[in-house]
Amino acid sequence: MTAKLEALLLEISKELNEVGFQQEPKSLYQPAEYLLSLGGKRLRPLLVLLGCGAFSDPKKAMSQALAVEVFHNFSLMHDDIMDEAPLRRGHKTVHEKWGLNTAILSGDAMLVKSYQLLSQADNTVLPELLSLFNTTAMQVCEGQQYDMDFEKRESVTEQEYIQMIQLKTSVLLGCALQMGAIVGGASKADAEHLYQFGLLLGTSFQIKDDWLDCFGAPEKVGKQVGGDILANKKTLLLIHALQVAKGQEKDQLLKWLSETDFTPEHKIVEVKNLYKTLKVDDYANVQMNAFYTEAISHVDQLSISDSAKQEFLNFAKWILGRES
Amino acid sequence: MTAKLEALLLEISKELNEVGFQQEPKSLYQPAEYLLSLGGKRLRPLLVLLGCGAFSDPKKAMSQALAVEVFHNFSLMHDDIMDEAPLRRGHKTVHEKWGLNTAILSGDAMLVKSYQLLSQADNTVLPELLSLFNTTAMQVCEGQQYDMDFEKRESVTEQEYIQMIQLKTSVLLGCALQMGAIVGGASKADAEHLYQFGLLLGTSFQIKDDWLDCFGAPEKVGKQVGGDILANKKTLLLIHALQVAKGQEKDQLLKWLSETDFTPEHKIVEVKNLYKTLKVDDYANVQMNAFYTEAISHVDQLSISDSAKQEFLNFAKWILGRES
Repeated sequence: MTAKLEALLLEISKELNEVGFQQEPKSLYQPAEYLLSLGGKRLRPLLVLLGCGAFSDPKKAMSQALAVEVFHNFSLMHDDIMDEAPLRRGHKTVHEKWGLNTAILSGDAMLVKSYQLLSQADNTVLPELLSLFNTTAMQVCEGQQYDMDFEKRESVTEQEYIQMIQLKTSVLLGCALQMGAIVGGASKADAEHLYQFGLLLGTSFQIKDDWLDCFGAPEKVGKQVGGDILANKKTLLLIHALQVAKGQEKDQLLKWLSETDFTPEHKIVEVKNLYKTLKVDDYANVQMNAFYTEAISHVDQLSISDSAKQEFLNFAKWILGRES
Repeated sequence: MTAKLEALLLEISKELNEVGFQQEPKSLYQPAEYLLSLGGKRLRPLLVLLGCGAFSDPKKAMSQALAVEVFHNFSLMHDDIMDEAPLRRGHKTVHEKWGLNTAILSGDAMLVKSYQLLSQADNTVLPELLSLFNTTAMQVCEGQQYDMDFEKRESVTEQEYIQMIQLKTSVLLGCALQMGAIVGGASKADAEHLYQFGLLLGTSFQIKDDWLDCFGAPEKVGKQVGGDILANKKTLLLIHALQVAKGQEKDQLLKWLSETDFTPEHKIVEVKNLYKTLKVDDYANVQMNAFYTEAISHVDQLSISDSAKQEFLNFAKWILGRES
């Protein structure tokens, strides 16, 4: 990470402590403060500041940066309930610690707070910011709904899957960059290129996430690999495998999907082997690279200096852990 | 109800059908459409239109009227989860019908939708509308939190109780009127008088609600009376009774609060008798009238014609079922 990114992250972290969750009733605001205090990479607020920084002082968009981070944490709080997740970043989830009702209501308050933070903008840019944020927030809800719907569905196409991860995750990255650009005074074209950059980079990142869960080195991923395989999660890997598998390999894959009596390690090894035979890992890499390349192409098209473009390229490399 | 109010209600009902919950994914939007279709008095959107209508064409504020109604239904959807309510307006609640996750996520989408509707305003008034709506939405969350906190607390003061019902319910009525006034082009003073009218009328209305639950005629209230007594709910009646009761009456009241072995009818009759002895019903009426009178005083102070003022007075009489 560059020194500039680090400096901005430090600013974000300081400002997040001042967002105003130290008020009454504590039972409503404390869980919000708790969840925000658990950390995270703060990618979204960073993107807002970077988007603004390409055209103006990055800190002009601090309120919008905080808005996006608070919104993201609202969605985590509610998603954790829906996923029945006991832990978030190694700590108890809010519904585990304080109960369901608190997690619902504190999440609601965080969503409202994100609008409050967003609204701290010049009247000239407020309508545009609000319209973008509204659309994005709705899409994030839709993405989460599709994710839950897909779990119950027999089959999901690759296209549907890509759309789902874009709605659930990537649109917020695009929104973050575009909001920053709007506050910074970017042209309409530049603001839209930054949205596309975020959307496509986010999509690439999500595919990498799927890939890492299966093929990553446990010591680097920082968690047990193979979780998606054990849960029969309809990731791009599984969806593609089901699409290209034929004959014996198809039978084997279907057998592992319906099998209930197995040791976890055995299932992971066998399904990974099938994925490799079917070249699913190569396919995921091709897709990941395609989205990455397209993302970068939008940075190329920005009407800003090369050194300003470099900030976005640095971010992209950092976030995807790329050497080149 | 006047013919004018009825005409506006008809418009609201038509427009609510077009809010845009007929899209994909159905699993997200259908529950929202369902809850909205169950009806309700549509007081809040009506107040928005009335607030606007005193200064301009009432329908100019239709988007904001819908925003407030969608917001109100969002809060009902989530509150019903928290209260474990099986029924809403005689039909299954959303979480009963579709499950917890759907009720959480559809509620979230409704909250976002309310911001989308609110945003359909002239840029000149948008910042003011947004600021008012943000504050109000946050207060509604706080009110719900206090309501839940109070259930677990040993004692609650009258002042705390009034503050809670104002946050949970009345501020949204004030917000509705003020938003309408803002869209209609009212002066700052008039817009604020309308806010106070809504806030105080709502408070009077909530106290009446408590009173009706205890002293109302079942055939008029449309539900079993005495529910609050059976649940030991800390309403204004109980809070005041505990405050003024002494000696034997206090002992009896406390006995009924801790008693677990009783027939419902017996407890209701006995507690009502205690309330009457303690003149709690008179006290509630005095409070109700005080808030009502103060509400009306804000209408008097509006700089609009007497016939325009009459619209608000008609509404107040209608909503509190008053003859005078």
